[in-house]
Amino acid sequence: MDVKAAVAFEAGKPLSIETVTLDGPRAGEVLVELKATGICHTDAYTLSGLDSEGRFPCILGHEGAGIVVDVGPGVTSVRKGDHVIPLYTPECRQCEYCLSRKTNLCQSIRTTQGIGVMPDGQSRFSINGEPVWHYMGTSTFAQYTVLPEIAVAKIREDAPFDKVCYIGCGVTTGVGAVVYTAQVEPGSRVVVFGLGGIGLNVVQAARMVGCAQIVGVDLNPARRELAEKFGMTDFVNPKEVEGDLVPYLVNLTKGGADYSFECIGNTTTMRQALECCHKGWGQSVIIGVAPSGAEISTRPFQLVTGRVWKGSAFGGARGRTDVPKIVDWYMDGKLNIDDLITHTMPLERINEGFDLMHEGKSIRSVVLY
Amino acid sequence: MDVKAAVAFEAGKPLSIETVTLDGPRAGEVLVELKATGICHTDAYTLSGLDSEGRFPCILGHEGAGIVVDVGPGVTSVRKGDHVIPLYTPECRQCEYCLSRKTNLCQSIRTTQGIGVMPDGQSRFSINGEPVWHYMGTSTFAQYTVLPEIAVAKIREDAPFDKVCYIGCGVTTGVGAVVYTAQVEPGSRVVVFGLGGIGLNVVQAARMVGCAQIVGVDLNPARRELAEKFGMTDFVNPKEVEGDLVPYLVNLTKGGADYSFECIGNTTTMRQALECCHKGWGQSVIIGVAPSGAEISTRPFQLVTGRVWKGSAFGGARGRTDVPKIVDWYMDGKLNIDDLITHTMPLERINEGFDLMHEGKSIRSVVLY
Repeated sequence: MDVKAAVAFEAGKPLSIETVTLDGPRAGEVLVELKATGICHTDAYTLSGLDSEGRFPCILGHEGAGIVVDVGPGVTSVRKGDHVIPLYTPECRQCEYCLSRKTNLCQSIRTTQGIGVMPDGQSRFSINGEPVWHYMGTSTFAQYTVLPEIAVAKIREDAPFDKVCYIGCGVTTGVGAVVYTAQVEPGSRVVVFGLGGIGLNVVQAARMVGCAQIVGVDLNPARRELAEKFGMTDFVNPKEVEGDLVPYLVNLTKGGADYSFECIGNTTTMRQALECCHKGWGQSVIIGVAPSGAEISTRPFQLVTGRVWKGSAFGGARGRTDVPKIVDWYMDGKLNIDDLITHTMPLERINEGFDLMHEGKSIRSVVLY
Repeated sequence: MDVKAAVAFEAGKPLSIETVTLDGPRAGEVLVELKATGICHTDAYTLSGLDSEGRFPCILGHEGAGIVVDVGPGVTSVRKGDHVIPLYTPECRQCEYCLSRKTNLCQSIRTTQGIGVMPDGQSRFSINGEPVWHYMGTSTFAQYTVLPEIAVAKIREDAPFDKVCYIGCGVTTGVGAVVYTAQVEPGSRVVVFGLGGIGLNVVQAARMVGCAQIVGVDLNPARRELAEKFGMTDFVNPKEVEGDLVPYLVNLTKGGADYSFECIGNTTTMRQALECCHKGWGQSVIIGVAPSGAEISTRPFQLVTGRVWKGSAFGGARGRTDVPKIVDWYMDGKLNIDDLITHTMPLERINEGFDLMHEGKSIRSVVLY
């Protein structure tokens, strides 16, 4: 079939709206009609050319929501008409990783996904017979996309696509880091470094689970108002702190954070996030993606005296199991997504969404099909 | 009362056997007659002068076992005649740390302990009226010592002092890191860096909890035989590995260690210990004490893809609650301490014990009173 898609022909160039050929779903695959997709920093990162896994031409996008319109042979978990969120972190429930009970990082299709093809080694997208590669196994910057059955989360039908698409990446990454990776308890004191799209979701998840104190750290004072609406109790602008930031945060949290979250991708703030944690039990979770080759450092004494350093990918959430729960939390009013989606646009204007992100003008832009 | 003790008059000098005056126990304190004490690297570290908390003259020693011979007013948890192990990590069961359920690092007397005095701010030891400072709140290099009630673990009376004194530090540090800090499950694959006194206790605890694979890493091939007796399944001498050690260990453990333990105190092996862990869930525990100012580093990607970096002090064991259990494990034959105590000596020859340690000839030397 012919579908409209935003194609990334080469690194560093704007996306191009094209009509591409999409083969139908094969065994174990589903065809999804996208209704909405967010534009995320990770798409921009790959488009920039810095992503060593980036393979062009490709169809970017990994934060979508849509409807199953066809299924290949052997598909049993979803059917035509189901509402779904594509998963760049699939959940096969059969690999060593899924069965470990300790991680959400299903590896069953990691190899093929990493090189832009379906599990059978081929792309379903093409232009004039030449392959156009998939991206993160999702390629949501197209009207229709093909996905392995294990890479879609079935969600309730009353959830609005234009909002819950954001659960496909940003919301889950932030909320899940609190709920699944850190498993923050009620009454905890948390510190959140970076109050962008991820950090704000960390803040609201911290409020949802009953934190006693939610400290937000950001150089941009304009973030304060929205962060407070999302549950932040204390705002710290490092530029306004006299002396070192770490002891200031330790003092502010009466001994240190029970949990801290780094949502920037800066190795200096990663260290600060660890070291502002409480002696004995404070845990620091790295969410942000650091520049290639950058390293984090600390004195081992920080760990020997009880702090724990960990990281989170896709919020530690299992896609098929946990994403539908997060949709419920949004529908129940426990999570605010609406205020985070600052801009919407048709696919034809998708490059404007990238511009808004680079200019820092948007929290999240969503393409509506 | 007059007691015989090995006094450290100044950094870098041998200990001197002296008769010192010991005041009796005050409120909440107990007087313990030591029957045996191990000699640990930490004593040597402080004696060397590198320990910024070291305060001279002092009575070193923190790995003892003995009998309560007197109690001060208000002592309720032990009585005259009880067999006890002194605790440099006390357990008050009332401070924020004890009540957190997340750490063993009771802080109730940390400040006074750190400056060599009892909780009332004074030393009980003196020579000619001049104070001799306590060390780690224990000072077991004396025939008798005074300890806060919260800093003694009551143990069974059939346990031999000359063996279970080692549970006062080394055994608990290694065994506890496996059982309490990492909570290693049966069937796990573990990698242990350093097969000295701590590492061998990690190895035997890994066997006790049912690990499937126990890899020992040490530059000294002479460690192999004893480590195998303690449960090591694979020995790796980094000098004999072609190429990088980390991928070698990942391959040997079929994807990486479920848990790794650094028992050397070297920041390079700390990084290797983290990076040889399994993607998705591998946890690395730092036990060794690095040189002052040394830093650990890694790429944050290691954590974002699921590895966890943590540390352990006194094995994460709560002194009064867990030390008696470890004594039981020894008495039940689950742990081997006898083979680790390679030398014994009277107090008069304690400096020989330090020499044996520095020369690498002993696993553990024990002073018998």
